[in-house]
Amino acid sequence: MLNPWGTSGIDDYEKLIREFGIEPMTSDIACRLPRPGKYFCRGIIFGHRGFDVVLAAILNGEPFAVLSGIKPSGAFHLGSLTTAEQIVYYQKEYGATAFYCIADVEAFCDNRIPYEKSFEIAVDNLADVLALGLDPDRAYIYRQSEEKRVMDLAFEAGAHVTTATMKAIYGEQTVFGLYMTALLQVGDILLPEHKDFDGPKPVVVPVGADQDPHIRLTRDIAKRLHPRYDFIPPSATFHRLIRGLDGSEKMSKRNPMSYFELNEDVESIKFKIMNALTGGRPTIKEQREFGGEPRMCRVYELAFFRIDDDSLVEDIYRRCTSGELICGDCKSIIFEKIAEWLKEHNSRKRKVIDLARKLLEER
Amino acid sequence: MLNPWGTSGIDDYEKLIREFGIEPMTSDIACRLPRPGKYFCRGIIFGHRGFDVVLAAILNGEPFAVLSGIKPSGAFHLGSLTTAEQIVYYQKEYGATAFYCIADVEAFCDNRIPYEKSFEIAVDNLADVLALGLDPDRAYIYRQSEEKRVMDLAFEAGAHVTTATMKAIYGEQTVFGLYMTALLQVGDILLPEHKDFDGPKPVVVPVGADQDPHIRLTRDIAKRLHPRYDFIPPSATFHRLIRGLDGSEKMSKRNPMSYFELNEDVESIKFKIMNALTGGRPTIKEQREFGGEPRMCRVYELAFFRIDDDSLVEDIYRRCTSGELICGDCKSIIFEKIAEWLKEHNSRKRKVIDLARKLLEER
Repeated sequence: MLNPWGTSGIDDYEKLIREFGIEPMTSDIACRLPRPGKYFCRGIIFGHRGFDVVLAAILNGEPFAVLSGIKPSGAFHLGSLTTAEQIVYYQKEYGATAFYCIADVEAFCDNRIPYEKSFEIAVDNLADVLALGLDPDRAYIYRQSEEKRVMDLAFEAGAHVTTATMKAIYGEQTVFGLYMTALLQVGDILLPEHKDFDGPKPVVVPVGADQDPHIRLTRDIAKRLHPRYDFIPPSATFHRLIRGLDGSEKMSKRNPMSYFELNEDVESIKFKIMNALTGGRPTIKEQREFGGEPRMCRVYELAFFRIDDDSLVEDIYRRCTSGELICGDCKSIIFEKIAEWLKEHNSRKRKVIDLARKLLEER
Repeated sequence: MLNPWGTSGIDDYEKLIREFGIEPMTSDIACRLPRPGKYFCRGIIFGHRGFDVVLAAILNGEPFAVLSGIKPSGAFHLGSLTTAEQIVYYQKEYGATAFYCIADVEAFCDNRIPYEKSFEIAVDNLADVLALGLDPDRAYIYRQSEEKRVMDLAFEAGAHVTTATMKAIYGEQTVFGLYMTALLQVGDILLPEHKDFDGPKPVVVPVGADQDPHIRLTRDIAKRLHPRYDFIPPSATFHRLIRGLDGSEKMSKRNPMSYFELNEDVESIKFKIMNALTGGRPTIKEQREFGGEPRMCRVYELAFFRIDDDSLVEDIYRRCTSGELICGDCKSIIFEKIAEWLKEHNSRKRKVIDLARKLLEER
């Protein structure tokens, strides 16, 4: 029998490892984690840079930080969950200090969202993260526009990077400020190592593979700034991105059938799941005979990322590949599970929305 | 008789007016100033952008600001005096609020001077400005690295400028941070209009003609930011640059005979003046017959910029062009006057050095 936790679809991720020097997340690292959890066990995290220093901190019970953030340009969606759950994981399982950045300067520069408006979006986003379990007492939550230390680091980073490097990484940008916000992001990633936060110390940044250029740039700059700060080059883990429900390779706001938001109407979510691309055979007869192809199926991928219950996901996988389960029934099972989780999540979220506002007003 | 306050040397400044749209500083503007002072009366200020709004504020007794700054990379020299004296002028004569920026981020990015070191240089520089008469009670003196509002404005400016514009203005810069410090300078110039300083209001920035690109960029960005801040496009006056004593077109640190620092040994200054390029004739006989050429003479230029006593400068000009005064004697007269001024200045400076430190430590 195939492994239900194997890679999904055609795997471009190996190319990243081969060509860009991302290190594979091998079992000798992942299995040494005391509680590896969904993201490691299912192979959603496929690679890393410098994760060994974070592993060492975890194993030795030494302080480390986990950092993530969000550009407050819209509601939390399926994709936002992957990073948010991981910062909660490191905080809850290993006592990491969590840093959560609201990238409002980037939202302004990239999407022309004024700070007053992005603040409201950020309140909503932060409430989602709190509902996922972030403990605000062991977290530093901040807006980029209010965090001078990040700006200081961005300017200092700028002094240590060539224009040619910026172009090689980010291409030709029309809006000059986009290069600047890239350096703000470098500042964000280095912030946990600031002396005000008892730095330097190991930091892990869970990101999608598309964020590797930021990571490489930041690790490079951390080394250049070393004589002044003793920064430890920040570590990153790279996770697979959940593909578009409609069969597209990437979830995208431009394509509403490819994803859903957490606060979306449940009927709309149902419609999207029921119309999603599956790995089903052309006829029920063939399905019964050959079984489905979960690696192609976006509904199975949804379960793979979003359903924590291992035995349920394994069961779906087994019954699909054996031809026992047909797509319509499978979609219903998975939709019900997702809807149940969403209901609980949104109920938790309503209880923390005021706290989210308070936390952001303070900082 | 020729006008001793006429233009000196070959005049490239008209080209700036013709080709770049700097407006000439015409008498209908300068003469309406209640007390035009040395820089306007001698034509050292040859052009402007948008000075009419500042003139109106002066004539109507309305609040306005004057802004200047220094990159703390070395001691005050002859060139630094021109802008510093002008901010004192607007403050003293018309009650302008003076903004004085210590561009330490730029000193780091451009000259790799760490903040701790540039702080000490800035203390020395600020003491010079205080000795020139700046009233700290009606001034906002700050270090760029400490002024988050300037950083905010720089990031916002970045969102409103294209990469192509940055390159067109500043050329191909290897160090990416130099573009960022250019936008910090935009932030500096807009700071007096921030609501925290009761902005928007007219601002005048006295600069050398070489700074026009910054001014144009800032005025352009001020207009783009208008809906959010109501900024009045900052005004600038452009002054001639004092040329190199040794005959070079520009004073330059790379060429120590071209200039002197205010804290330089008086014998060294004497040596530089005595060896400066003059407008003298090849022989004393010819000098007596045709008179000297003050417009070529760098020692006359020194007097023109640095000696406030109009009648003395006029007398030197008259006696030079009539053949009465020969270069050796003239150099001695001018050196003595400069040495006397320097002695007084440095004595005043010693008295305010502790104040300068205190002011910079506070901010």
